[in-house]
Amino acid sequence: MPHTLVLLRHGNSEWNQKNLFTGWVDVRLSELGTAEAARAGELLAESNLLPDVLHTSVLTRAIQTANIALDVADRAWIDVRRSWRLNERHYGALQGLDKAETLEKYGPEQFQLWRRSFDVPPPVLADDAEYSQVGDPRYANLDDAELPRTECLKDVIARMLPYWQEGIVPDLAAGKTVLVTAHGNSLRALVKHLDGISDDEIAELNIPTGIPLVYRLGDDFMPLGPGEYLDPEAAAAGAAAVAAQGKK
Amino acid sequence: MPHTLVLLRHGNSEWNQKNLFTGWVDVRLSELGTAEAARAGELLAESNLLPDVLHTSVLTRAIQTANIALDVADRAWIDVRRSWRLNERHYGALQGLDKAETLEKYGPEQFQLWRRSFDVPPPVLADDAEYSQVGDPRYANLDDAELPRTECLKDVIARMLPYWQEGIVPDLAAGKTVLVTAHGNSLRALVKHLDGISDDEIAELNIPTGIPLVYRLGDDFMPLGPGEYLDPEAAAAGAAAVAAQGKK
Repeated sequence: MPHTLVLLRHGNSEWNQKNLFTGWVDVRLSELGTAEAARAGELLAESNLLPDVLHTSVLTRAIQTANIALDVADRAWIDVRRSWRLNERHYGALQGLDKAETLEKYGPEQFQLWRRSFDVPPPVLADDAEYSQVGDPRYANLDDAELPRTECLKDVIARMLPYWQEGIVPDLAAGKTVLVTAHGNSLRALVKHLDGISDDEIAELNIPTGIPLVYRLGDDFMPLGPGEYLDPEAAAAGAAAVAAQGKK
Repeated sequence: MPHTLVLLRHGNSEWNQKNLFTGWVDVRLSELGTAEAARAGELLAESNLLPDVLHTSVLTRAIQTANIALDVADRAWIDVRRSWRLNERHYGALQGLDKAETLEKYGPEQFQLWRRSFDVPPPVLADDAEYSQVGDPRYANLDDAELPRTECLKDVIARMLPYWQEGIVPDLAAGKTVLVTAHGNSLRALVKHLDGISDDEIAELNIPTGIPLVYRLGDDFMPLGPGEYLDPEAAAAGAAAVAAQGKK
């Protein structure tokens, strides 16, 4: 029996709508995002893909997405596990900045480097900055050195993969259908691992919001085939929209 | 430092509104119940009672109540644990029946016995009945003998207390503020234990929906004083409304 893994990127957030870099800033879903989450729940139910356990980040927009989708799919009662290791990439000093203004100010090359470079993080966010997470009670159990002040995708992979191995794989091994609701970059990190995408090619991968992406995994917890979106047309349109971000 | 325990009965459900016996039937919150849950979240936030961990039953109406209240209180990200042991009393063959019709058909004495007797359960619900929980995937891990077909309050206490001791007390012992969202009778069972209410007197205790009830507990995890509702006036009115149920 293959193992079933469902990945779901949170729906549109209030800051997606404002075109701001979000990262670890804990913004909420927009009305559009709420509707996307409900649609994701319908897709799960229609496809009879019924999760037995939920893994989320500790960011509200991913948790709201999961709560809404599971409520619609009549699976609100499944077990829940959360980890900061599933959080969005920490965008450093870019957190709270307007994407279009940043593009204009720094130019397309620097902008694209910050957004899609594999190993160049944005400038560090100061601990006393408005959008710093230092002192946020949800990270009280982290060593200070674990709490990021900026991250590139390589950093996200480094902190996400231990949770894949130690948090998620055991649930798959127990025969559970696993739903992971997370973020553009933490899911890109996971898909990079699963699909064996190279450091160079990962820049081109965009994951659309609100559309469940289903993998069947073998006994080594690697894919038996390509991941499949439950609504492929909407997924293609959504990925194109993500790629065009910043170009207001 | 006293330990802090917050109890919250789920808001008004679709079947509360229809005046039907619900028990383990998995109905959803009504619009009123959704508003009650949001108000509960405001009360938590205003009182600076910020839960570190949530315990819920596996019934959707309690889970929805918690999700909404914690979202409003900006604590959606806390850890979640669920147990069937926090479920509502199983109402046996009464599940799905109209309360007013049942009162008329069987008379006030029998009706009150089923509703409030400490140790007389309603008739058993047949496994092939419409509202049976046999085969419900959320109870797949229970021994068949553990899955109730009817319960009196004494039965609820017997299955709830082990979860209090083994599931909830360890979180309190770890210094966490604990939120329990559950049901009229599972919370009556817990309050009976905490307040040392006798088997005879518990019939008179009614817990209103949607209003957080706060206990400060000592090192023996028993109350240092009476539990306090965060909105005492609304709580008194709500308890009176519960007592009047069935009298349509």
